[in-house]
Amino acid sequence: MAMRTPISHAMKRATRTSPATPVLSPCVQRWRRGNATVAPPVTQSSTGARGPTAMVFMNMGGPSTTDEVHSFLSNLFSDADLIPLGRLQNYIGPYIARRRTPKIQKQYAEIGGGSPIRKWSEYQAAEMCKILDQISPETAPHKPYVAFRYANPLTENMYKQLLADGFGGGKGGRAVAFTQYPQYSCSTTGSSLNELWKWRQRLEGKRATGEVDPAGSIKWSVIDRWPTHSGLVEAFAQNIEKKLLEYPPEKRDNVVLLYSAHSLPMSVVNRGDPYPAEVAATVHAVNQRLGMKYQYRLVWQSQVGPQPWLGAQTSNTVKNLMKKGNTDLVLIPIAFTSDHIETLYELDKEVIGEDAEGHEGVKRVDSLNDNPVFIQGLADIAKAHLHSGVACSRQMTLRCPGCVSERCLAQKQFFAGQNQLLEPLAA
Amino acid sequence: MAMRTPISHAMKRATRTSPATPVLSPCVQRWRRGNATVAPPVTQSSTGARGPTAMVFMNMGGPSTTDEVHSFLSNLFSDADLIPLGRLQNYIGPYIARRRTPKIQKQYAEIGGGSPIRKWSEYQAAEMCKILDQISPETAPHKPYVAFRYANPLTENMYKQLLADGFGGGKGGRAVAFTQYPQYSCSTTGSSLNELWKWRQRLEGKRATGEVDPAGSIKWSVIDRWPTHSGLVEAFAQNIEKKLLEYPPEKRDNVVLLYSAHSLPMSVVNRGDPYPAEVAATVHAVNQRLGMKYQYRLVWQSQVGPQPWLGAQTSNTVKNLMKKGNTDLVLIPIAFTSDHIETLYELDKEVIGEDAEGHEGVKRVDSLNDNPVFIQGLADIAKAHLHSGVACSRQMTLRCPGCVSERCLAQKQFFAGQNQLLEPLAA
Repeated sequence: MAMRTPISHAMKRATRTSPATPVLSPCVQRWRRGNATVAPPVTQSSTGARGPTAMVFMNMGGPSTTDEVHSFLSNLFSDADLIPLGRLQNYIGPYIARRRTPKIQKQYAEIGGGSPIRKWSEYQAAEMCKILDQISPETAPHKPYVAFRYANPLTENMYKQLLADGFGGGKGGRAVAFTQYPQYSCSTTGSSLNELWKWRQRLEGKRATGEVDPAGSIKWSVIDRWPTHSGLVEAFAQNIEKKLLEYPPEKRDNVVLLYSAHSLPMSVVNRGDPYPAEVAATVHAVNQRLGMKYQYRLVWQSQVGPQPWLGAQTSNTVKNLMKKGNTDLVLIPIAFTSDHIETLYELDKEVIGEDAEGHEGVKRVDSLNDNPVFIQGLADIAKAHLHSGVACSRQMTLRCPGCVSERCLAQKQFFAGQNQLLEPLAA
Repeated sequence: MAMRTPISHAMKRATRTSPATPVLSPCVQRWRRGNATVAPPVTQSSTGARGPTAMVFMNMGGPSTTDEVHSFLSNLFSDADLIPLGRLQNYIGPYIARRRTPKIQKQYAEIGGGSPIRKWSEYQAAEMCKILDQISPETAPHKPYVAFRYANPLTENMYKQLLADGFGGGKGGRAVAFTQYPQYSCSTTGSSLNELWKWRQRLEGKRATGEVDPAGSIKWSVIDRWPTHSGLVEAFAQNIEKKLLEYPPEKRDNVVLLYSAHSLPMSVVNRGDPYPAEVAATVHAVNQRLGMKYQYRLVWQSQVGPQPWLGAQTSNTVKNLMKKGNTDLVLIPIAFTSDHIETLYELDKEVIGEDAEGHEGVKRVDSLNDNPVFIQGLADIAKAHLHSGVACSRQMTLRCPGCVSERCLAQKQFFAGQNQLLEPLAA
């Protein structure tokens, strides 16, 4: 069934100053009715305290050891939001995963035996929460969680941990799903949110309790994109400036910056996915911060399979520019915030090692990893979000024009509907 | 022959404070030698006056009357920078043009008998020059010119007029090629620059005089892109806000903004054309100026022929969003600065009239046309350029990674090389 009422109408926030009657969805009305007849749940507002607040970092994840490669790939190729394989997804996905496992295991072995993404995600979340406790005492304590889409800790396990830690399950509580993809794509952040919504329904929603919004379930909100946040831009710019210092002064001004982001299939681009435009916004912001001093291009990596993907390809670009005499190139992974196989293997070993034949002029900037400017930026984003009382961005409530996913629709309705449960903090 | 030395090396500017020996190209050295033995040309610096300065607005143009449609289409389909048709371009191009003429003539007849792009371009250039005379007296008087790629006034005629007006042809003088495409594409601004460079060679360059840089030829510089200039962004934002006032207040916050830009063939995108990323930068900047209050998408219009083009398509997007219940849509032509057939016919008649079946919730913002905020912005851009002493942006000197056009290479070398002839003005 196509939704005839835009989500934006359902999420319209009833402010205290608004004279209009709040437009409550039936589920929220039911929640309010239920709330009036039972003991109030232990939420922040009912106890007078705003915290604790669970800060859940969402990302795709990666296998921490080569033994996890198969289950990682199996989860990945089963995800129709990421790789749409049609009705046979559940058969073709595992088959492709099985076939690719040895090759990918070898790649992980070459970068130290596993992905460092879990280590960095846990570190970034923990450090951000420490800063948040200082700059947002109203919502403290902040508790860090990590939810990966395809590797441990999986979303399911994170949700069970939340419940075990006293969030939700009748006790209320507040959690923020904080995407660690700065730019929104339905195949990344959208997929993670679909998974989070699924487990929320299974563990404390309609499938668990019979109620869509049972009393005392977790109040969720989403930080769904932050492509041009000043902290992100500053961290990237500083890393680029640091890398440029490795070139002799007379060569420095002529280094070409190649911002490289994971590509998307053209079928996803043509559906109206906002990712390409948001990645471009990040690139432009970083270049503005650098004073537009350098030549640059936005290029796209990690294309697989025979279908058309968005280009220009990182690999071809490096080869072509070198042929044209541009041998001083700096690669900047612009859509991921920590090291993973796409930086350590694909950029370092394939693009620099093979395409550029290890030319000393071709370098990669450090990933953000433990960058303190970046982590301060995450805290600033989180604080602004927590104090806004808004469940998600306006942009998140607009489905892609070509989207036909019912799950995507239900997920957006759920998170947008949480707006009714949140209260902005006084400035 | 592939260029093994990046253009950026050739354009490296020798500043007065630089201790390094200026790297002059042989042609510039020859120009300087020639200069020493003949009477100095009447340039700004040799007479003590900086002006007059020719301000040349470059754009694709459009037929002012239906009689001009055939020659317009013929020029357009002959342009391999815009529509690459291979070795048979000169045969296939005119054939397609002839076949399409009746249909396109009918479209122009429906929008009043011709394109208003000449009227608006001449108005914008003249008004900008009046402001420039006030805010940049050092380079006054500023003389407005228009050079279209496919319609009158053609680049060739503009150049002849420049010579007739006393610029170049031994007398020196200063001209600025100011692209009226805010975002750079090789198929738009690049094509106009290739054409300008061709006529410069024919009328006062090597083909006319035997010298690449003959004494007293025009000193050219280029304003090649300005996707996020504050004047452009402010003008777009004000027009959007004005259009939103036409909706009832209770609907206004839920209107979806559809920024529509002319699409590119994927072959051009995959070659590394910077246009999609720069259009996205404009869109992001306008949304930031609007406080990220509205749902939006960047969409692409005017796809023709069977080859794949960049999407999502404007037409499909409108149809799909309306099916989903989003019937309040504002179309914003984000990559053109005045009305032309893509706004007046394609958006107004085809997208709004047919795809949206004339639904009253689907509207288009006014084009920039005579918008004073926009024209002031043009003057600010021009002043900053004239005072910088820089021939073109850093970004213009980087060829697309997949580019194989020798003309494009020679054109970039020419304009970047002009850097040697320019002097920055004191702040």
